[in-house]
Amino acid sequence: MSLLIVGSIALDNVKTPFGKVDQSLGGSAIYTSMVSKNFCDSHVVGIVGDDFPKAHFELLDKNKINIQDLKVVAGKTFHWSGIYNDMNKAETLDTQLNVFADFNPELSEDNRNCNYLFLGNIDPVLQLKVLKQMNNAQITACDTMNYWIKCAKSKLLEVINKVDILFINEDELKMLTKVQNIFEAAQKAKEMGPNLIVVKRGEYGSFAYSNEFIFFAPVYPVKKVIDPTGAGDSFAGGFMGYLASIGNFEEVTIKNAMLFGAVTASFNVESFSVNKLKEININDILTRKKIVEKSICF
Amino acid sequence: MSLLIVGSIALDNVKTPFGKVDQSLGGSAIYTSMVSKNFCDSHVVGIVGDDFPKAHFELLDKNKINIQDLKVVAGKTFHWSGIYNDMNKAETLDTQLNVFADFNPELSEDNRNCNYLFLGNIDPVLQLKVLKQMNNAQITACDTMNYWIKCAKSKLLEVINKVDILFINEDELKMLTKVQNIFEAAQKAKEMGPNLIVVKRGEYGSFAYSNEFIFFAPVYPVKKVIDPTGAGDSFAGGFMGYLASIGNFEEVTIKNAMLFGAVTASFNVESFSVNKLKEININDILTRKKIVEKSICF
Repeated sequence: MSLLIVGSIALDNVKTPFGKVDQSLGGSAIYTSMVSKNFCDSHVVGIVGDDFPKAHFELLDKNKINIQDLKVVAGKTFHWSGIYNDMNKAETLDTQLNVFADFNPELSEDNRNCNYLFLGNIDPVLQLKVLKQMNNAQITACDTMNYWIKCAKSKLLEVINKVDILFINEDELKMLTKVQNIFEAAQKAKEMGPNLIVVKRGEYGSFAYSNEFIFFAPVYPVKKVIDPTGAGDSFAGGFMGYLASIGNFEEVTIKNAMLFGAVTASFNVESFSVNKLKEININDILTRKKIVEKSICF
Repeated sequence: MSLLIVGSIALDNVKTPFGKVDQSLGGSAIYTSMVSKNFCDSHVVGIVGDDFPKAHFELLDKNKINIQDLKVVAGKTFHWSGIYNDMNKAETLDTQLNVFADFNPELSEDNRNCNYLFLGNIDPVLQLKVLKQMNNAQITACDTMNYWIKCAKSKLLEVINKVDILFINEDELKMLTKVQNIFEAAQKAKEMGPNLIVVKRGEYGSFAYSNEFIFFAPVYPVKKVIDPTGAGDSFAGGFMGYLASIGNFEEVTIKNAMLFGAVTASFNVESFSVNKLKEININDILTRKKIVEKSICF
């Protein structure tokens, strides 16, 4: 099965207590696809400027990530600059949309036919545009963030109503639903349309909430978190990649997808940018998956 | 098997967004024993003043909690007054030690022979006194809090060195070990002596950490938390009570104990004081245990 990923592609400046990087490869579509490529045929839709380094194109190419709908236009690539004093919360120092301001995703026929769709955290107007172009996607999912909940809520609710899966941070879920109890909030979000709510809780793991079940996934116990940037996106990459590789939406598949998400996020936070994701393969993922599975089962 | 519980017995004033109670039955030994009595023969060591209502003695008696070492002396019972604006953090408004200031636990021969010991969160000097009086306890455990970590660290380290299990909140674990990463901190605490560290993380569940395994227990998804007071103690009551009922310290027993702790804590937070704990029995606990088990297994 094929997975289409729409999201930002960025050159980031990130500082954490363990170091810093400048103009490093980032963005939701990058983190998601650099994980999902271990599981399934992965396609990226996005936009970059003509400053986007050749080495990054080569990296995507080497990893067999389909970039036929990755547009290159004159100007500078999207840029985010952030600092983590507390490893659980990024402080944004600067955001420069640059060429992303004119992003207008147009899918090739090939991409319209992808079976699975992940809408990374971008403007809900763009997420809707992509959704409308899909021919017959089996499963669709979206992520979002506080900014869109505050500034584009009605469009965001349209997206949420149309997708099968909503990925969301716990704080954002409370903000979206205006409900403080996390389980009540998940229930309320489910009533907005999706069949499944995946609530991400940082170092505390995540849980999946549906009509039929609730499933708690722990984290893989990383002893040294270097950079949390992209943790949510790499979680989604593991989750959606595994889902697409299996091709059904059964309870046991979703539970396994949650654990794969936990594992792929754990690799990601062990380095800046995609430095760790570049190095791992499906066997590394499976080894860690067994450990995570053991940490919740009898 | 019999479980000896040492801790505070209190008349509390508690206020949460859902209401308030005055002079209500509380204290670590009460919350722990009102849970453990569902699993095993439970004994309480403590002290109260002559203001301690007759109805409370009757409640303990009715629940077959052994109170032969519950001292009654002239004066007022220990009093704690607190408010929860954020349900994850109590703000202490007032603490009156009263008769607890002169607490000097002396165990009857019967209690010295209990097989299991839980040292609730009290002065480590008193915890040590109790430990020394035990004849041949199979498993010993202690809880503690930030105050003792700050003000009585060397005595506390003596206690921790002597017990098999340390129950501790995640913030207190970081404070105790001076390590920010929770898994590294658990490892460091383990090196202080105990075979098992049980890290309590409030609404995020808990995890057990030993040389052999790590096990993550979720919470039971309570949709309306009324009063979190005693959540940690009622967790310990479920954990230690189940352990004492089984009589071994094997991995599968510990994992089950973690889930029983999660369940008993979930009942406790659904009401003020021990109002809910009074009403439930082992069948209610087993029903919820099955649900919690399902929420982490395939």
